[in-house]
Amino acid sequence: MSLYEVIMTRRSVRNFDSREIPEHVIESLLDAANNSPSGGNIQPLSVIVVREPEARKELAEIVGSQPWVGNAPLSMVFCLDFYRLKRWATVFNTDFKGEQAFSHFLIAYADLMCSAQSVVLLAEERGLGSVYIGTIQSNMDRAREYFGIPQYVLPMMVLSIGYPKSVPKNVPKLEKEAMVHREKYRVDSDEDITRAFENKYGSLEERMENYFERTFVEAVEADKQQSERWVETVKEEMKRLEIKSNAEFLFKLRYPAEDMVKMNEGLFRSFKNAGFDFS
Amino acid sequence: MSLYEVIMTRRSVRNFDSREIPEHVIESLLDAANNSPSGGNIQPLSVIVVREPEARKELAEIVGSQPWVGNAPLSMVFCLDFYRLKRWATVFNTDFKGEQAFSHFLIAYADLMCSAQSVVLLAEERGLGSVYIGTIQSNMDRAREYFGIPQYVLPMMVLSIGYPKSVPKNVPKLEKEAMVHREKYRVDSDEDITRAFENKYGSLEERMENYFERTFVEAVEADKQQSERWVETVKEEMKRLEIKSNAEFLFKLRYPAEDMVKMNEGLFRSFKNAGFDFS
Repeated sequence: MSLYEVIMTRRSVRNFDSREIPEHVIESLLDAANNSPSGGNIQPLSVIVVREPEARKELAEIVGSQPWVGNAPLSMVFCLDFYRLKRWATVFNTDFKGEQAFSHFLIAYADLMCSAQSVVLLAEERGLGSVYIGTIQSNMDRAREYFGIPQYVLPMMVLSIGYPKSVPKNVPKLEKEAMVHREKYRVDSDEDITRAFENKYGSLEERMENYFERTFVEAVEADKQQSERWVETVKEEMKRLEIKSNAEFLFKLRYPAEDMVKMNEGLFRSFKNAGFDFS
Repeated sequence: MSLYEVIMTRRSVRNFDSREIPEHVIESLLDAANNSPSGGNIQPLSVIVVREPEARKELAEIVGSQPWVGNAPLSMVFCLDFYRLKRWATVFNTDFKGEQAFSHFLIAYADLMCSAQSVVLLAEERGLGSVYIGTIQSNMDRAREYFGIPQYVLPMMVLSIGYPKSVPKNVPKLEKEAMVHREKYRVDSDEDITRAFENKYGSLEERMENYFERTFVEAVEADKQQSERWVETVKEEMKRLEIKSNAEFLFKLRYPAEDMVKMNEGLFRSFKNAGFDFS
């Protein structure tokens, strides 16, 4: 498969079979992680390789009870790492203050994601599947404690990897032209925007399971892997909240606007606990 | 070339020849940008395609006089875009407050970088070269004005792309094991850390041009493309600051610690000007 096809057909995989990943494949993924672009090439990155069953189980809990993280034979915890740089600077009587410089943070986090995405595409090309788990950001204190992560290091992203037992159908995406702007930013009308999302998500009216398969695959997968009635729970919540549009589904049920804002406090506390403060 | 080789041999390219990139290649890069993973698949991304000579010249100035941005036949401005989502939510009488939720910002920026890195690797596989330009973050207000970018949209990364006239030699990287941790974070000793960076950068003692070719290729490329004595200027600065180590080179001259912290104010002002406020 060409790289173009890999990129165009890739889907986040949450259903892994029990096959182990060969050592040489894991090492090639780590080579890729280490050889990604880095702003000023300062490489403010560490990757914790998680394979032991107990650690996988703990990680699945840390990210918010996501069974696929425990089922995946391999997870990589991508850490934004200023600790190594600060220690090195100190040895040579100089200073690195990335933990106070938002600009360093933003570039380091970009580096980290370049690294992770290189791993995603290489894994896919090797017949593996993977899924990003960003919710580790909501539980960085516990992750730092469990993995023995020192000050000035933030575990920002998890990638769970394994051979797919099943791959979800194609995910709905905006049409390219809704996302692409030529030479200048094109401010779309409400009608254009509404149509773009209608084309992406389709109607809520059809069979709800089909809708979830496309838009809330986590609920469907959680059902399959934990038998916990997640899909039923979501349906009941939709009824209770009187959700009648894709937009309401996303911003009232899945990412309730006020709750998302309230998360700032915990996030900033975790940053501070790790020694980061940009104020 | 296999994807593994693409990833392992890729270097940031700043020296582009004048060949145009065929339309179908540009469109495949944009397909890749649009089909990248996205947290909750909300796709908070816009890409501005910059090809017109005047816009390229302006963009090169916006990012801090980087001639390669003007020389590249194509630049993509990756924008974190909450405007489209907010408008859509409003149409359906609901609310998206990503501009106040740091968690939404962090996941959206991760999405943006996934998208950009997919483009980087596909471009490389197609025989193109590219370079990330993060310094647009220091001049977001001017970028927003020039490209007509509305509220709730932040231009966070530029990717300049073209056929390479020359490709820099292999960049020094940390050995993989310095970056990789197995099961738990391994806290290295000062000696381990010092050795890891020595292995990466080598000694400052050798011919300074060779050192810059490896570690500060921007200065060398700027010399070639603008004849502005950047390398000489850097050498004089090194003398003046009495720089005797790689660490001092990085954190006294290239990224002076105090100056980096002082940039916060401007960054946060640009965020506020775009309607973003997480406090």
